[in-house]
Amino acid sequence: MSKPAIGFVGLGAMGFGMATHLVKQGYPVHGFDVFPASVERFKAAGGIPASSLRESAEGKSYYVVMVASSPQAQSVLFAEDGIVQHLPPNAVLMLCSTVSSMYAQSVVTELQNRGRSDIRFVDCPVSGGALRAANGTLSIMAGASDEALAAARDLLQEMSDENKLYLVPGGVGAGSNMKMVHQVLAAIHILGASEAQGFAAQLGLDARATAEKIQSSDAWTWMHENRFPRMVEEDWNPGVSALTIILKDAGIITTTARQQRFPSPLCSTAEQTYISALLHGWGPKDDSAMVRQYYAKPLSDVTPCTDAEAATELVLDYMRGVNLVAAAEAVAFARYLNVDLSMFHVLVSQAAGASKIFIEQGLEMIEGRIGDKAPAGSPTVDQVATKLESAVQKARDLHCPLHLGNEALNLLFMAQRHGWGDQSSTSVIRVYGQ
Amino acid sequence: MSKPAIGFVGLGAMGFGMATHLVKQGYPVHGFDVFPASVERFKAAGGIPASSLRESAEGKSYYVVMVASSPQAQSVLFAEDGIVQHLPPNAVLMLCSTVSSMYAQSVVTELQNRGRSDIRFVDCPVSGGALRAANGTLSIMAGASDEALAAARDLLQEMSDENKLYLVPGGVGAGSNMKMVHQVLAAIHILGASEAQGFAAQLGLDARATAEKIQSSDAWTWMHENRFPRMVEEDWNPGVSALTIILKDAGIITTTARQQRFPSPLCSTAEQTYISALLHGWGPKDDSAMVRQYYAKPLSDVTPCTDAEAATELVLDYMRGVNLVAAAEAVAFARYLNVDLSMFHVLVSQAAGASKIFIEQGLEMIEGRIGDKAPAGSPTVDQVATKLESAVQKARDLHCPLHLGNEALNLLFMAQRHGWGDQSSTSVIRVYGQ
Repeated sequence: MSKPAIGFVGLGAMGFGMATHLVKQGYPVHGFDVFPASVERFKAAGGIPASSLRESAEGKSYYVVMVASSPQAQSVLFAEDGIVQHLPPNAVLMLCSTVSSMYAQSVVTELQNRGRSDIRFVDCPVSGGALRAANGTLSIMAGASDEALAAARDLLQEMSDENKLYLVPGGVGAGSNMKMVHQVLAAIHILGASEAQGFAAQLGLDARATAEKIQSSDAWTWMHENRFPRMVEEDWNPGVSALTIILKDAGIITTTARQQRFPSPLCSTAEQTYISALLHGWGPKDDSAMVRQYYAKPLSDVTPCTDAEAATELVLDYMRGVNLVAAAEAVAFARYLNVDLSMFHVLVSQAAGASKIFIEQGLEMIEGRIGDKAPAGSPTVDQVATKLESAVQKARDLHCPLHLGNEALNLLFMAQRHGWGDQSSTSVIRVYGQ
Repeated sequence: MSKPAIGFVGLGAMGFGMATHLVKQGYPVHGFDVFPASVERFKAAGGIPASSLRESAEGKSYYVVMVASSPQAQSVLFAEDGIVQHLPPNAVLMLCSTVSSMYAQSVVTELQNRGRSDIRFVDCPVSGGALRAANGTLSIMAGASDEALAAARDLLQEMSDENKLYLVPGGVGAGSNMKMVHQVLAAIHILGASEAQGFAAQLGLDARATAEKIQSSDAWTWMHENRFPRMVEEDWNPGVSALTIILKDAGIITTTARQQRFPSPLCSTAEQTYISALLHGWGPKDDSAMVRQYYAKPLSDVTPCTDAEAATELVLDYMRGVNLVAAAEAVAFARYLNVDLSMFHVLVSQAAGASKIFIEQGLEMIEGRIGDKAPAGSPTVDQVATKLESAVQKARDLHCPLHLGNEALNLLFMAQRHGWGDQSSTSVIRVYGQ
């Protein structure tokens, strides 16, 4: 059986990988991009070049949009001579860009307003980076009507890992919400990796030895493991993951949180720190370059400390405290948005937002095991606060910024002030009104 | 009656003004400083130069310490050949440096340990800047035993404005605590002035016109009025109020807050922003240079906006929201520390920590007029949050950092999540566990 023709727009790092993977799987993929060079490159890789949006869309029953932002999506979909007016009846339209759920839902309304309710629209952001895009092993979070999901499923499966296609209950918007609450963790942990290693350098610790301790402990995060090599090698020009990308995702989170009037203090702190770096010209660099906001020299250039073991413990306590509050913020927000929490836990645990603390304490929060219901022997809010406090105070004495560390500590203190200090550490989620 | 001889150490900007004012009042002042040039300058101004701490202290029944920090105070007081071992019996020792209450209390213990309980020690930090120091019109917050206060009172009055000598109940430590909770407002409002004017520039507003609107409205802060001229003139080398000074004070606040396990999220946010600027080399500059962390060009170099009225309202709403939460943070912390709240309100209202919002809503918080007890017609938490949210979102759209704005908004959201949204805006103090 011959495979259907696919229209595709957005041949950047991610889109190029996704589109060429589909080419390798035998699909005729008609690719368009505003940069002619990208289209040429796609042609060289076996794709079918389209000279316009119209050409990419006409007669294509399946269409993938992988542009960088919702304004770009709005333009390619609905501008004059855009995709929507040229798609055939009942086409399956997959929006893989990371956008807000509100934007995704607005597309449905706009299709109705234009008399194109026949188009089967799928809100299906992806995660996993350019390499996994090219290998067809992305994570994809898809929300749509049952009919649209059924129609899109095979193609989405082609682009995703066999265990990482998430058909998210809740219709259009649910996919974007799932990605967004995942990105709460990603946005915090990316900065956390830089903050931890900058703090370690200020303490006089060897970067690699510290990173190994983090990665082999309960302080581990996926982002730290992934970003550390680029951080220590200063391999951040051009950025594999440009600061502007996580900043865009953080903006979707905090903007949605504001619309929902939901507090996102830790993610906001990360975002504000990214924006400050942007103002100083760091936007195009890899986000691992954020370490320079904490330590002005290369990580190899440190004054060794005398008690590395005690200093390393401070770094681990820093990460434990921040990762705990990050998990609380993500779970609380996900619950507030009625995101499927079991799926959320499975998804995060095997994706870029993962941390050991989220995998364990995050699950406890999801299952309501806070307060008296926490497992025996769990640390208390008081205990986590005490350890984080030592780390934050040490950073202060060294004049080392610790944006997330301070924020997380203040949230733990608020939990204590509300009388939850002797409860399990997972009870910090109650400061979010849970 | 001849005036008593006074020993004095620390002839920096503040100390020089205080010491020369006492000289003008007819006191024989024996001044010492580690910088010989400062001693020479003091001599030229009519002071009596001391060649050592010993010479400054021997036979002096009154001694004023005005060094820059507690480590310096510890050194001049207790190092070998330091002040304490040379003071005569029953001398009155006034520590005017800004230190933590814990440090001030440690001096009492150290005097006891050294068998010098006879020394009448006064914890009496000052506020008001170099000009008021030279005019003898400082604010002074003095805590000590009744006997020590009585003995020091006349001399403290010489250095302070007739209405601004505060004899703070609570003994040694109470003066420093009073200054510290005042500085909560100072530390936040200093950054708030830069954040407001940086945001205004990003919005395309004329700096001076915006400043006038702020100063003539309920968004007024003393710090904004004081810092704005230096900010707009870029008159920050050398700094009249170096960034390092407010950073030191912020460090006393957050370190004390951590020891007390009391949340100080807004002040911590300000401190972290200062530390980041320090890392980039801004320490010696005037703290009004923080505006550069929000707008990279001179404030005169803006692209004018089309609707200045609406844009100005965003800036005012930003300041109202931040000033409200700043007042809540300061009052909550002061109450927790058992600071005399009536005195605190009077002091702040006529000092550098003042804001229109503190003067009015701060008083309501102090008097417990929150929730149902608020005055009729007061805005609610919901209303303040809605207006601040618009400002924060606009800043986000412009990629303008708004560290304090985001933090304050998240605290208002927490108040909403706890169910206090329809209560008076003063109820935001409840997030601090009140």
